[in-house]
Amino acid sequence: MTKEALKELLEAVAAGETAPEDALEQIRLQPYRDLGFAKVDTQRGVRQGAAEVIYGAGKTVDQIIAITQELLASGEKSVLITRLSADAAAAVGKAVPLFYDPTAKLAVAGERPAQSDTGHIVIATGGTSDIPVAEEAALTAEFYGNRVTRLYDVGVAGVHRLLDNTALLAEARVVIAVAGMEGALASVVGGLVDCPVIAVPTSVGYGANFEGLAALLAMLNSCASGVSVVNIDNGFGAGYLAGMINKM
Amino acid sequence: MTKEALKELLEAVAAGETAPEDALEQIRLQPYRDLGFAKVDTQRGVRQGAAEVIYGAGKTVDQIIAITQELLASGEKSVLITRLSADAAAAVGKAVPLFYDPTAKLAVAGERPAQSDTGHIVIATGGTSDIPVAEEAALTAEFYGNRVTRLYDVGVAGVHRLLDNTALLAEARVVIAVAGMEGALASVVGGLVDCPVIAVPTSVGYGANFEGLAALLAMLNSCASGVSVVNIDNGFGAGYLAGMINKM
Amino acid sequence: MTKEALKELLEAVAAGETAPEDALEQIRLQPYRDLGFAKVDTQRGVRQGAAEVIYGAGKTVDQIIAITQELLASGEKSVLITRLSADAAAAVGKAVPLFYDPTAKLAVAGERPAQSDTGHIVIATGGTSDIPVAEEAALTAEFYGNRVTRLYDVGVAGVHRLLDNTALLAEARVVIAVAGMEGALASVVGGLVDCPVIAVPTSVGYGANFEGLAALLAMLNSCASGVSVVNIDNGFGAGYLAGMINKM
Amino acid sequence: MTKEALKELLEAVAAGETAPEDALEQIRLQPYRDLGFAKVDTQRGVRQGAAEVIYGAGKTVDQIIAITQELLASGEKSVLITRLSADAAAAVGKAVPLFYDPTAKLAVAGERPAQSDTGHIVIATGGTSDIPVAEEAALTAEFYGNRVTRLYDVGVAGVHRLLDNTALLAEARVVIAVAGMEGALASVVGGLVDCPVIAVPTSVGYGANFEGLAALLAMLNSCASGVSVVNIDNGFGAGYLAGMINKM
Amino acid sequence: MTKEALKELLEAVAAGETAPEDALEQIRLQPYRDLGFAKVDTQRGVRQGAAEVIYGAGKTVDQIIAITQELLASGEKSVLITRLSADAAAAVGKAVPLFYDPTAKLAVAGERPAQSDTGHIVIATGGTSDIPVAEEAALTAEFYGNRVTRLYDVGVAGVHRLLDNTALLAEARVVIAVAGMEGALASVVGGLVDCPVIAVPTSVGYGANFEGLAALLAMLNSCASGVSVVNIDNGFGAGYLAGMINKM
Amino acid sequence: MTKEALKELLEAVAAGETAPEDALEQIRLQPYRDLGFAKVDTQRGVRQGAAEVIYGAGKTVDQIIAITQELLASGEKSVLITRLSADAAAAVGKAVPLFYDPTAKLAVAGERPAQSDTGHIVIATGGTSDIPVAEEAALTAEFYGNRVTRLYDVGVAGVHRLLDNTALLAEARVVIAVAGMEGALASVVGGLVDCPVIAVPTSVGYGANFEGLAALLAMLNSCASGVSVVNIDNGFGAGYLAGMINKM
Amino acid sequence: MTKEALKELLEAVAAGETAPEDALEQIRLQPYRDLGFAKVDTQRGVRQGAAEVIYGAGKTVDQIIAITQELLASGEKSVLITRLSADAAAAVGKAVPLFYDPTAKLAVAGERPAQSDTGHIVIATGGTSDIPVAEEAALTAEFYGNRVTRLYDVGVAGVHRLLDNTALLAEARVVIAVAGMEGALASVVGGLVDCPVIAVPTSVGYGANFEGLAALLAMLNSCASGVSVVNIDNGFGAGYLAGMINKM
Amino acid sequence: MTKEALKELLEAVAAGETAPEDALEQIRLQPYRDLGFAKVDTQRGVRQGAAEVIYGAGKTVDQIIAITQELLASGEKSVLITRLSADAAAAVGKAVPLFYDPTAKLAVAGERPAQSDTGHIVIATGGTSDIPVAEEAALTAEFYGNRVTRLYDVGVAGVHRLLDNTALLAEARVVIAVAGMEGALASVVGGLVDCPVIAVPTSVGYGANFEGLAALLAMLNSCASGVSVVNIDNGFGAGYLAGMINKM
Repeated sequence: MTKEALKELLEAVAAGETAPEDALEQIRLQPYRDLGFAKVDTQRGVRQGAAEVIYGAGKTVDQIIAITQELLASGEKSVLITRLSADAAAAVGKAVPLFYDPTAKLAVAGERPAQSDTGHIVIATGGTSDIPVAEEAALTAEFYGNRVTRLYDVGVAGVHRLLDNTALLAEARVVIAVAGMEGALASVVGGLVDCPVIAVPTSVGYGANFEGLAALLAMLNSCASGVSVVNIDNGFGAGYLAGMINKM
Repeated sequence: MTKEALKELLEAVAAGETAPEDALEQIRLQPYRDLGFAKVDTQRGVRQGAAEVIYGAGKTVDQIIAITQELLASGEKSVLITRLSADAAAAVGKAVPLFYDPTAKLAVAGERPAQSDTGHIVIATGGTSDIPVAEEAALTAEFYGNRVTRLYDVGVAGVHRLLDNTALLAEARVVIAVAGMEGALASVVGGLVDCPVIAVPTSVGYGANFEGLAALLAMLNSCASGVSVVNIDNGFGAGYLAGMINKM
Repeated sequence: MTKEALKELLEAVAAGETAPEDALEQIRLQPYRDLGFAKVDTQRGVRQGAAEVIYGAGKTVDQIIAITQELLASGEKSVLITRLSADAAAAVGKAVPLFYDPTAKLAVAGERPAQSDTGHIVIATGGTSDIPVAEEAALTAEFYGNRVTRLYDVGVAGVHRLLDNTALLAEARVVIAVAGMEGALASVVGGLVDCPVIAVPTSVGYGANFEGLAALLAMLNSCASGVSVVNIDNGFGAGYLAGMINKM
Repeated sequence: MTKEALKELLEAVAAGETAPEDALEQIRLQPYRDLGFAKVDTQRGVRQGAAEVIYGAGKTVDQIIAITQELLASGEKSVLITRLSADAAAAVGKAVPLFYDPTAKLAVAGERPAQSDTGHIVIATGGTSDIPVAEEAALTAEFYGNRVTRLYDVGVAGVHRLLDNTALLAEARVVIAVAGMEGALASVVGGLVDCPVIAVPTSVGYGANFEGLAALLAMLNSCASGVSVVNIDNGFGAGYLAGMINKM
Repeated sequence: MTKEALKELLEAVAAGETAPEDALEQIRLQPYRDLGFAKVDTQRGVRQGAAEVIYGAGKTVDQIIAITQELLASGEKSVLITRLSADAAAAVGKAVPLFYDPTAKLAVAGERPAQSDTGHIVIATGGTSDIPVAEEAALTAEFYGNRVTRLYDVGVAGVHRLLDNTALLAEARVVIAVAGMEGALASVVGGLVDCPVIAVPTSVGYGANFEGLAALLAMLNSCASGVSVVNIDNGFGAGYLAGMINKM
Repeated sequence: MTKEALKELLEAVAAGETAPEDALEQIRLQPYRDLGFAKVDTQRGVRQGAAEVIYGAGKTVDQIIAITQELLASGEKSVLITRLSADAAAAVGKAVPLFYDPTAKLAVAGERPAQSDTGHIVIATGGTSDIPVAEEAALTAEFYGNRVTRLYDVGVAGVHRLLDNTALLAEARVVIAVAGMEGALASVVGGLVDCPVIAVPTSVGYGANFEGLAALLAMLNSCASGVSVVNIDNGFGAGYLAGMINKM
Repeated sequence: MTKEALKELLEAVAAGETAPEDALEQIRLQPYRDLGFAKVDTQRGVRQGAAEVIYGAGKTVDQIIAITQELLASGEKSVLITRLSADAAAAVGKAVPLFYDPTAKLAVAGERPAQSDTGHIVIATGGTSDIPVAEEAALTAEFYGNRVTRLYDVGVAGVHRLLDNTALLAEARVVIAVAGMEGALASVVGGLVDCPVIAVPTSVGYGANFEGLAALLAMLNSCASGVSVVNIDNGFGAGYLAGMINKM
Repeated sequence: MTKEALKELLEAVAAGETAPEDALEQIRLQPYRDLGFAKVDTQRGVRQGAAEVIYGAGKTVDQIIAITQELLASGEKSVLITRLSADAAAAVGKAVPLFYDPTAKLAVAGERPAQSDTGHIVIATGGTSDIPVAEEAALTAEFYGNRVTRLYDVGVAGVHRLLDNTALLAEARVVIAVAGMEGALASVVGGLVDCPVIAVPTSVGYGANFEGLAALLAMLNSCASGVSVVNIDNGFGAGYLAGMINKM
């Protein structure tokens, strides 16, 4: 509530136009429902312009169903659920209508939103093994109404595969670079485009990769400008942010 | 060079409109000047929409002067130099016209570009000690023509200082959250706004801060959506990326 | 044994009021029973004001039963057992009367102690996935006779959920802040209250969370005063310490 | 501002007893002064029961003087400044009346507060080299009106030195255990007392100590109950928290 | 395409000998087949002198079969597949002719290439447990036509076993030193031979070995000259590089 | 072979007393049997005064049986096998006579050696969960003919349990201190005795224990003199070294 | 004080042979002098068989002088001071008679003790740069009356230098292996001798040596039996322990 | 000495052709001079085909001079000294004829060897700041008689600078890729050439670069085949190994 809005409200109270009780509600109305184990943010769409998302890992199936139903009941048409195992998805799918993608381990409860044609997000991966993370990003971006082009297996050890797609990259408003191992894709892409690059390190690799640490550090140290980084394997975060930028 | 441009060029050669030698030049023209110790990218403005930047750390004063002069000679009106010590700035300033900010350790050679009024970047810091990094971001964004508002010392241990400025934050097209210690500022800001948040961990702190590692990990693990992270103390990177997004 | 007590005892020996053998026993009486694999502290209640606790992880079911029976036989009315798997609890429950909470993986052998109304401990979590650790803390504090209020899923990315409960926080004599991911909850809570805050980092998260390291470092670097930290996922330690402070 | 207080205020506005402008001020009155580079919390004493503290590291002398003067001007009788170098202290001392302790690198601007006799904090160190951190804790606790007893150089490699002081430890309401190297002091103390132990790892040591990491990890893994940990070398944090608990 | 080749092509276009469309193809001909989830490099043999290799980990069986068939169809006589589980090998073996080594978890699809007698690679291991990694290196080197001698279990704690084989080592053109635990084998071998030594740290060990980190750091710090290091457990990388050097 | 021995041998060859072939054998006789996958040191007893040991982890059952049989055939009366799973022990036990201890996961093939009464090794643990590692140490020391006293569950959080056994500790020629969590046992023991203390960190603990790293670092930083450290969970190494010192 | 001694004392009190006050003194006599900043252990020679040592780092010159004088006054003939800078040594030398070795940064106050001829300690280093740490070990061992042979610069990259000295190594009762970089010396030595090997990692090296971490981890993972490890650069600890073992 | 050589020697002794004393010398002749603080390898040229090198860091000027003079006296025409500070070089240069390169901090004592034209080593750097490490590699390779081409400042963020030099890279027999920050250069180069690539991570960068760790991990995880890695900033190691391979 901005200072101006608050001032107006107080003046309305002083003028007798608004009852103190109602003003109290307006100032302190809880923008969430309290389920005990979760405080569900039912007005996040209003406040932040995008519906609440359920991070499935570490929640029981019953908790996921309850939160989903609460959100659908509060008026959300569709709810995104990330990090949902196939088993959990089967169980949740019995309680609410559910689309589930087993590669990305991502579900949409309720209606699947329509995609928009505004702008263009390119999602590139270093290798085939990075695809699950890339799909989490792609499906998230599509959930929020963005157009996505997938450009998979263009790692820097065969840089001609990437250079062959510079025209495609040039059309993007945002690029998501998903790579494990040495994570160099973000830097090379960052040098080829003039739009924001969101780098997603993946845990693909072994040994001195240390579960994605190698790619993470490489991306944080990128010598290309315009690159920022999200958590290891955080396809959702990249897809969400890319959509936010794409719509600006 | 896009596929279409290449096709046109080849047709011009076939038609005798362009000599093979000229086509060769056009295809392979080096978009940089080779100084031996550096390959200066004199056409980056054309390719990526923003002029080349000189990262001052680890370069000798002579190298910095030579690269700066090469860029100014190639038509750049102003050149940004980051991580420049006061001593080095004094020396460089004798060779080329130089604006220098000792807090941000950042210089502009040639003319200082005019700021634009398009959009709005808010730069918030957790504390007073984070200001040098924040100023590197602010001056970088201003160099590229963005309007910047500084909101310093609004760390989460006194969260009312931040909440008191939600109206300001709501107007931003991009927010840069600069914080050391526990780096929580990025998460709290990320939950308050619906625009991209660029998180900059700083090396401010001691002990288990491990030179900024604590803030870096915290920011990468932010539970708020729309947050991405750049390297520790990388004010330049945040300012550059924020400007890129602000102008979309 | 204090210097004064020792002096009195020696004078009693000199006066013939106490036999040397009895004095020997008083000075050296072993305050534990030796089971070979464990030295059970049967007089800890006398010495430290709180009964012995069994850390279940890494002990066999037979060892847990033997220690529990030894403690109950020595006069303890109830024994707390932490980190007990559901399978082990089922086995132990056949040998001794047992209350078991599967979320917290915590058991009470013998009678469940009554709660007191003295003071008030608030236990807050960043998210739903942190609840198992929070319940370990809550049940531990309740075992030692403290009143506990649970305030779950109030993470800083939706800071209004926390601010909406400042009145509740203001009543607390101690707050336990349980959070994974970026662990920022402790700092924000620490800035809102004027009582001790015990921060419990959890291993909830993934990637650069590194099994709770991110939250641990963040909490150790909290810019709020009055915050101290226990081990990752150490709900018991937080609950025990909170009870100790609450009763002061 | 609690819900009840807000309700009363709104009713006063409705009743015409309070003007909307005044209510606005009361709701939104900034509890800090904005110096640009710092937002000084001039009402923290009211809100959190203890005056604002200035963390000296990373601030310029001019900034420290300005913040100190602002706090003194707003009614604080004394201001604590930590991590202040001897050189900076000399400069600050020219602008405001200043007590400075070179061992603890801690200063008090304005009047030094009187100590209280309520309760008792014991501060123990493993060795002589840990004394600077211990003194930061001791002087902080004394600043907030607590009685402190120093018990220095009682490390566990000569455990009789500690056991010889069990009577002293038994009288404490809080113990601060300050130790570098292997940090075992906290565990041994924790097993001897029935009051809260605040463990402060120090960076004293070399090699595999890794600047205090060894002691930090040891203290976090303490097998004694009732122990919590603050950041490496964070004497201030321990002293502040100990005072908070001592006064309960 | 070298500058000279490009110039000739352009002159041919100017002379009408080559159609612009054909030149376009020659310049931009994609040296890979795009399967969507993978961009298969069908001309790597031409470009880099060695056929494409499939890294099996993280790919589905269907993906591995499709890439293998694409490579065989494009003219490769044999395809190397590394990190292939026994189960996956059984499934792939139904689709294409396959040789599989369960110790090295390495397969060859199509014909097994003949070995050459040129030069000589010695592969030494510190212990018996390092053999799986050593065999990955050995079979890779043999796949590319090199002669390999295995020298297993010659760790430095019984240095006579190694010294007894100095004559064998002296004949090698390249030595691969495979060792876990303290990884000292590389340094001792490096001091005995005058040819390149490729060090392969393995994850064999426990505790402070940290999954191969101890051996990796030791090998990177080798005081012997002529030693370089590949990733932990990267037998393939060592075998490939050794073959490359052996054939020079 | 010492310089003197070699000189004598050469003089015998010059004098015709020893044939060159025999001298060659004496100089180069392989003190091991080569099984291909292992080079079994059949004369280690002669060279180092203690029979060869088989580290079971990472070896196949067939390899363990073959090495054991080779050693028994070469004249060893008993062979120690460490880190042997219960399943592997069952399989090996069918091929050679075998004593197996499931707690220590340690086996003796052939005859179990008699214990000696010379000297005395005390093995202390911090807790019950450290017993498996302690038993590996105890059984190893006993295998090599040493007298061992077990002193389990004497962690520093109840330091009276340890102090109650100072007489026992005073009789030891070597003490092995086995502890996880904060690993403080080694320092306290080191301050109580005047004999060597071998510290064995264990992986017992959780969270910031990082699989034994906390205890390892604490023990390396022990402020007590006379303490040295072996690898995490390395009961064998401690038992072997303790026996070596005990017999001096 | 053992149980038996205590019993006898109490019986003497009961018999009137010892006054309670005297018994009190005997039981509780502080075996240290309290200087406030240090509790000096003046009877450690009695209790542990070796005089107190002063760790110079982190102590002021005044503190070192006071502790040294206290020890000399209490009857010690000589006092060892480690980690003493040349400047501090000059200052201390004005207050007490002092021998100082600038390479080892080690001093002896009072008389230098005579060396013994009992047994034999060999101290080997990997390189010339490890000598300062080795000298700290050597001078410490000599201070406690041991015979020491120095064997410097015998690193494993030229293993013949070490093998050439096997006769010398065979005579040792203890070997101290001092090495930085990859720390392999300990393993090779461990395989050549049948006496305890104390490994001292040094911080000699650069890059992935990480201040001695590489050597430390290598030594902890040594595949040779009979090797234990002290802290990085801890020459004193190794020399002290070696002397303790040598005299058994 | 090979088995065959030894057999021949022994037969010569038996035949009276060689005296036992001479044989002794031949077998055991110490291939080094013992200076006490160093064992100088005066025959390494014979044994390993390349003269001894002096690693200057951590040695005193006197030690460096003594070793250099010993090597020159033993017949070496030139001696390479690495990691030599400018001050030390000035001092050494007074004792022996010395060429010194201040950028690489590398010196040649005695004559500078002539370069060869055999083969070709290309040394590429990511940036200007990596040049000191690259020059250490270049001058080392030239010292051992190799032809070197420098290709500086071709980092992947401007990949056209590298692609523009593919012809040059194609001519190389070995490529050394020197890069800090994200270290991606090695991977991109590795994908362009069919010769061995030696990757040298540098400590150029800041923040999450962690003194070269980011580049090191990236290079170890390179998805390109034919890449191996040396220690951070180890220009010498790369230059030495490259020369070894170039001459094969």
